[in-house]
Amino acid sequence: MSEISLLPRDKVLRDPVHNYIHVTYQVILDLINTSEFQRLRRIKQLGASSYTFHGAEHSRFTHSVGVYEITRQICDNFARNYPSTNGSTELWDDHERLVAMCAALLHDIGHGPYSHTFEHIFNTDHEAITREILTSPDTEVNHVLRQVSPEFPEEVASVIGKTYPNPQVVQMISSQIDADRMDYLLRDAYHTGTKYGMFDLTRILRVMRPYRNGIAFEANGMHAVEDYIVCRFQMYQQVYFHPVSRAMEVILNKLLHRAKFLYEHGQLTGDQKPTLLIPFLENDFTLSDYLHLDDGVLTTYFTLWRDHPDDILRDLVSRFLDRRPLKSVRFTPETRSLIPELKQIIEEAGFNPDYYTAINDSYDLPYDAYDPSSKEPKTQIEIIEQDGTLEELSTVSPIVAAISGKSTGDERFFFPREMVKPTSDLQLFEPLYEKFQKYLRNDSLINPHEV
Amino acid sequence: MSEISLLPRDKVLRDPVHNYIHVTYQVILDLINTSEFQRLRRIKQLGASSYTFHGAEHSRFTHSVGVYEITRQICDNFARNYPSTNGSTELWDDHERLVAMCAALLHDIGHGPYSHTFEHIFNTDHEAITREILTSPDTEVNHVLRQVSPEFPEEVASVIGKTYPNPQVVQMISSQIDADRMDYLLRDAYHTGTKYGMFDLTRILRVMRPYRNGIAFEANGMHAVEDYIVCRFQMYQQVYFHPVSRAMEVILNKLLHRAKFLYEHGQLTGDQKPTLLIPFLENDFTLSDYLHLDDGVLTTYFTLWRDHPDDILRDLVSRFLDRRPLKSVRFTPETRSLIPELKQIIEEAGFNPDYYTAINDSYDLPYDAYDPSSKEPKTQIEIIEQDGTLEELSTVSPIVAAISGKSTGDERFFFPREMVKPTSDLQLFEPLYEKFQKYLRNDSLINPHEV
Amino acid sequence: MSEISLLPRDKVLRDPVHNYIHVTYQVILDLINTSEFQRLRRIKQLGASSYTFHGAEHSRFTHSVGVYEITRQICDNFARNYPSTNGSTELWDDHERLVAMCAALLHDIGHGPYSHTFEHIFNTDHEAITREILTSPDTEVNHVLRQVSPEFPEEVASVIGKTYPNPQVVQMISSQIDADRMDYLLRDAYHTGTKYGMFDLTRILRVMRPYRNGIAFEANGMHAVEDYIVCRFQMYQQVYFHPVSRAMEVILNKLLHRAKFLYEHGQLTGDQKPTLLIPFLENDFTLSDYLHLDDGVLTTYFTLWRDHPDDILRDLVSRFLDRRPLKSVRFTPETRSLIPELKQIIEEAGFNPDYYTAINDSYDLPYDAYDPSSKEPKTQIEIIEQDGTLEELSTVSPIVAAISGKSTGDERFFFPREMVKPTSDLQLFEPLYEKFQKYLRNDSLINPHEV
Amino acid sequence: MSEISLLPRDKVLRDPVHNYIHVTYQVILDLINTSEFQRLRRIKQLGASSYTFHGAEHSRFTHSVGVYEITRQICDNFARNYPSTNGSTELWDDHERLVAMCAALLHDIGHGPYSHTFEHIFNTDHEAITREILTSPDTEVNHVLRQVSPEFPEEVASVIGKTYPNPQVVQMISSQIDADRMDYLLRDAYHTGTKYGMFDLTRILRVMRPYRNGIAFEANGMHAVEDYIVCRFQMYQQVYFHPVSRAMEVILNKLLHRAKFLYEHGQLTGDQKPTLLIPFLENDFTLSDYLHLDDGVLTTYFTLWRDHPDDILRDLVSRFLDRRPLKSVRFTPETRSLIPELKQIIEEAGFNPDYYTAINDSYDLPYDAYDPSSKEPKTQIEIIEQDGTLEELSTVSPIVAAISGKSTGDERFFFPREMVKPTSDLQLFEPLYEKFQKYLRNDSLINPHEV
Repeated sequence: MSEISLLPRDKVLRDPVHNYIHVTYQVILDLINTSEFQRLRRIKQLGASSYTFHGAEHSRFTHSVGVYEITRQICDNFARNYPSTNGSTELWDDHERLVAMCAALLHDIGHGPYSHTFEHIFNTDHEAITREILTSPDTEVNHVLRQVSPEFPEEVASVIGKTYPNPQVVQMISSQIDADRMDYLLRDAYHTGTKYGMFDLTRILRVMRPYRNGIAFEANGMHAVEDYIVCRFQMYQQVYFHPVSRAMEVILNKLLHRAKFLYEHGQLTGDQKPTLLIPFLENDFTLSDYLHLDDGVLTTYFTLWRDHPDDILRDLVSRFLDRRPLKSVRFTPETRSLIPELKQIIEEAGFNPDYYTAINDSYDLPYDAYDPSSKEPKTQIEIIEQDGTLEELSTVSPIVAAISGKSTGDERFFFPREMVKPTSDLQLFEPLYEKFQKYLRNDSLINPHEV
Repeated sequence: MSEISLLPRDKVLRDPVHNYIHVTYQVILDLINTSEFQRLRRIKQLGASSYTFHGAEHSRFTHSVGVYEITRQICDNFARNYPSTNGSTELWDDHERLVAMCAALLHDIGHGPYSHTFEHIFNTDHEAITREILTSPDTEVNHVLRQVSPEFPEEVASVIGKTYPNPQVVQMISSQIDADRMDYLLRDAYHTGTKYGMFDLTRILRVMRPYRNGIAFEANGMHAVEDYIVCRFQMYQQVYFHPVSRAMEVILNKLLHRAKFLYEHGQLTGDQKPTLLIPFLENDFTLSDYLHLDDGVLTTYFTLWRDHPDDILRDLVSRFLDRRPLKSVRFTPETRSLIPELKQIIEEAGFNPDYYTAINDSYDLPYDAYDPSSKEPKTQIEIIEQDGTLEELSTVSPIVAAISGKSTGDERFFFPREMVKPTSDLQLFEPLYEKFQKYLRNDSLINPHEV
Repeated sequence: MSEISLLPRDKVLRDPVHNYIHVTYQVILDLINTSEFQRLRRIKQLGASSYTFHGAEHSRFTHSVGVYEITRQICDNFARNYPSTNGSTELWDDHERLVAMCAALLHDIGHGPYSHTFEHIFNTDHEAITREILTSPDTEVNHVLRQVSPEFPEEVASVIGKTYPNPQVVQMISSQIDADRMDYLLRDAYHTGTKYGMFDLTRILRVMRPYRNGIAFEANGMHAVEDYIVCRFQMYQQVYFHPVSRAMEVILNKLLHRAKFLYEHGQLTGDQKPTLLIPFLENDFTLSDYLHLDDGVLTTYFTLWRDHPDDILRDLVSRFLDRRPLKSVRFTPETRSLIPELKQIIEEAGFNPDYYTAINDSYDLPYDAYDPSSKEPKTQIEIIEQDGTLEELSTVSPIVAAISGKSTGDERFFFPREMVKPTSDLQLFEPLYEKFQKYLRNDSLINPHEV
Repeated sequence: MSEISLLPRDKVLRDPVHNYIHVTYQVILDLINTSEFQRLRRIKQLGASSYTFHGAEHSRFTHSVGVYEITRQICDNFARNYPSTNGSTELWDDHERLVAMCAALLHDIGHGPYSHTFEHIFNTDHEAITREILTSPDTEVNHVLRQVSPEFPEEVASVIGKTYPNPQVVQMISSQIDADRMDYLLRDAYHTGTKYGMFDLTRILRVMRPYRNGIAFEANGMHAVEDYIVCRFQMYQQVYFHPVSRAMEVILNKLLHRAKFLYEHGQLTGDQKPTLLIPFLENDFTLSDYLHLDDGVLTTYFTLWRDHPDDILRDLVSRFLDRRPLKSVRFTPETRSLIPELKQIIEEAGFNPDYYTAINDSYDLPYDAYDPSSKEPKTQIEIIEQDGTLEELSTVSPIVAAISGKSTGDERFFFPREMVKPTSDLQLFEPLYEKFQKYLRNDSLINPHEV
């Protein structure tokens, strides 16, 4: 690694969550100033969640600098309290600081607008794109990283890809308690205005320590870690899996499907041609095409489609732009079999069920419940005793044991709000409406034939 | 006024600033659900300020519901403590509640993307448009308001237009201490992460009271009012007038000018035609055209113009999208005469001064320093003593007297950052660069011939 | 109940936790101004915990007004959303408001200094004294309460004693989620500076509702309730059961024992006679004697005893006043049998084990883990579904199920710090010291013979 | 200076204001553990203010560790950004760190209970006592300090006494913006629950820098400094000078006077003899006598005096312990001459004016308005420009100029509440009461003869 220039004096960015983001290296400043990184300002961190929690309008830019800042603080703490002076892999080698901080800053750089929905429809992959942004010689990010050393872009990419040899660095960025999760929980709690995500970051940073296989937590800080796990659980239950946000994502999904269908049938043309989306509709896009996308690009085309002749497309973009979510109920493996009956009633009421109903499973969402016994076990959280003994967290915390391995999501069936709140037009089919009600109780699907 | 339906139970929206927004009337819920109001989600409250304070990405939607909530709380307080039972105009008639709350919610509904810059270039007027949205029979907002009574849309519009007969209602929405300013100061402070805007809302609400000519503040709460004035002063100085935000607005202004120029010369066509902006470029737009605009529409066209053949347009959109602000220095009436010399150097360095320099005066910005002695005096802040005597705030507060009538802005000259941080290419003109430096000291323009 | 005078306008007390305490009735104001209530200013809420968390110096006065305020807010919410107009016991009868608020304010009025330790040694009983303060005709509190009605003192006492007929009122003040616990968790968290106690009070208040048998919580607020239970669990683990606070309480206990012993042997006389404690040392005290006690009275006598000729008393008061806590280790039923060996070593080192060792069991402390299956089951927390079905919380919350019925305390053996941190004098017995170490590992007692 | 032992790892104390207090040196830990320092836990920071703001019960202990922590952070910042490597007195010599931190920690160690009132009556001097605690060979504090070097106690004392040669160190602890004031403003705001004291500590620490004559503030942080000055002004106006707190201090003053009078007349004997106060009543006390005092010692004797035969003493201790403040009105130089008339009415109503009236001037209180033009000018606040130019704050800040040199206090006349809120007994003298009212309007004394 070539000589890295420390800034003569820290630069700071004012941040509502961490108060200040401290930029100490020129390379970090240069990365922030790249076109690819600035683009993250135009992509919301939480996608459709701001339809449920109106304050949650923050971008991936703010989250990314926050992850960087937490990583910087971890490095500072490790360098002061656990410095490796003799190359011991038990302790922290501060030469790893820069690769850790760059990986932290750039870990989300491949994200596009409403990633989960967009990727599903257009077969994009934000992880592959992250890697490409880092390693392709054409990006500004790569240009900055190469100034550190020719191998540096690959090193940073390997931290994000979890193949970097030093597990301490990898776990700082991606593990059960990493800088990424800690920042997003705090930041999303701050902007949504919920209090569930407010764990004690300072205390967790104090009890983190490096060890041979990564990062462990001192026993006397066990409860702060436990509290973090509970916060995460609550945020998923209360915020990330909120049925209204999922309902809005369902609409987005359906409208992009409809747009694709119409494009394939030659019906997205003229002023309604989505120029910047064509490469994706054609399934033939370059990195540059991808970097032209952001939330505003999608909503601009949706706005144009408000006047499209297709009834379904026009209706769906209006439901999305004007926030008219679908309604939903929980179902279980037992009640799942009732869904075709519901779809039939909905169709009778005049809604195409392909576009106006959906089942959506919050297990699909990227919930990362801490579960050391799962098939693909993630890194365990290790508690380290005074004498160096390690214990996996759920063996010492009954609360965490209670959550571990339990899925916290629910399966829901989505349908038009009109089925339960009929408007004047819909009163025509009132018997249909009454029939539909019989399937619903206490936010759940029930079998009306058994009651 | 027809019967107004109270909701059987409050609905709440989670809000990071007020914790919860309480919706108690069906009409308020219906207004929030209109297409015109939902559109405010896509327009940032602070425009270019998020380039300086990255957390400040909140929309006009969040501010608008916040202004509504503060107004609701004022009404609750007035109704409980100062009810007019005999028609006394000294006290509060709670029949005014609904018109006040609707005006609060809708006061910003006519705003478009980056209003101040956009209006300047395209001759739009958000106040006129607000009025049109309320009173035009074609909008969803008007449709909801008319359900209260046929005159209700005009009444709400007259509160916003300050012609409504009851001054208590008008001052609640627009005066030196109104629900609008109180919400934006708190909200902008919350999202920027600065602490300057954090005055004591609860205390101010407690000491507000109606009187014949509007709203006054009890003497024992004078210091809370004083603190609010200082917060406002600090927020203007520190946040709203920040030179970097103004520099980004200058770029936006210049790039829209360039786009207009190119359009007029037939050079914004094909894939780079800004369909949704055409009515404004043609200076012939409808309300519906206006309601199609949002921040994303602008940045989508800017993204398309990244590939435009015009060097200046291409460069300016990149400076805007990639956040590369101009630099600036303060100047005074004395040093203003040096600006032509600077422009000449800048032109020699290869920048067209029409597009790469600007003078920008923060006096132009909507700063509303409390100044009872100005030519167009705004409503004074009245302090009310135990025995009912009124005293204008600045006569009892030396701090407020110190701020009153003092302009807090500064005049700045903006120029390309390359003039002070030359890149490799620019080193070619190094003597120019040295010459330029001589004009700058301590963030101010100086006369190098005199030093 | 006679006519109760509402204050013409609310009085407020500034409060760091609830922002303002709103006093709306004259009787509440009068109760706050009684001598018995003002005395709570001189008694710390958390006793010895401020030795561990230095910010936790707040008094029972602040907590008591906080419990009142939460109760007032619950009543407001019930009166607005669930008013009983026809005498239905499902809903809330607002005539109960005053008895509820008075009981809330006065529920802790019988507490004395360092209650748990003091009561143990002097056979006082703060619950009996609370009742006496309310119902004895000699107190100012009784005088104020009687102005409401002759039966009112007994009614308030019966709410605190849980025999009042309306279970809604009783559960407001004492149940698994009551105004008392909610205030102390928030307040203790605020003053200790820990974040564990910060649950979402506003949301819990919103989802509380009356029903026939007391108070239930709406299903859509289940997670806020769950979060409260976890906060409570964390506060007990992290704050209330902290080993250093318990070590200081052990010292207090031992020094009061020693003082009692010396008094009984005629050795607390002259300037060192604890005049205000004599009635308790004589086991013959009046209510008036009790009301003369406060934290300062105890520490004043301790200060006088700094010069007492008895070595043990002198040493113990100095350890208490100068904060020199005992050390401790956890033990289990298995390792308990090793304690006599440890005591013998300690005695060999020169410490009287009767005064310098203790076993202390945090199960003894008033931890009120939510446990519907215990022998003395407390009120269950009931979750109420949309259709009125009730479900006990732990049947719907895996987190709460994990905590329920699990004791969270630990048993500890306390001993002089000198045994592990020898001072110069103690190095004389260094082999003893080494022997002692062998019993300790990872904060636990181990069997050195087995290792 | 001998070798100083850094702790192998930071110890932390949880703090509600600074989150954690970081103890990095053994000597700091040892000082905190001295008997003299632990005694500060038993002395309230704000004395009688907790009678007005009930949350303000925090002790001088918490403030003292807070001042230490801010000083530690300043030193860290100076050491990182302005290290003196060549002995330059423009920059920071980190060898000064320990003396600065010790002085910060110990600056208030000489305070006794209710210092301002106590000192006035008993001629004690907390500054002289601070010096004695540091330099007397008999104290634990001196013992710890001597372990650094024989001269160290004197050095620390000279920092507190402002005679230490390095002005940077002196100004860190005592100047217009020092660690002392910054901690108490933040801490008192936190515990009172007011928001006026909440300035931006982090930003101020960032813009502080050493220069030859002390400490200056960078021009770009001018507004944070300005905001601090306004906070200070507001806290004095709203909290420190609150008339109710001053009324309680007047009572304390009067009751100590009465006790002194009775002692001198042989009437404080037997069980009511204030053993620990005798040396002060005799005006012959040792340092040890002084170190035995705390808030609880005073209130314990007051409790004993509740049964004293002297009517005035008994009444005054009850007013103090039971919080029954005097009332007050503002007067001016013009209306001052009316006070004898008021006193006469009060005497006619049965109150001895020597014990039941007072004039109290908040100018006497230690308000330190920033005033460079005063006769005894304090250190100025210097703003440092990019090119090193210094400017005194009030020359660049109109807000500060408005406050500078203006006294913010008021003169008040205190009298028994019974004069304006007659109880049943007092209704006997109703005409007196009516006559008294005529002197009062809008919280001010007026001349009833002129109206």
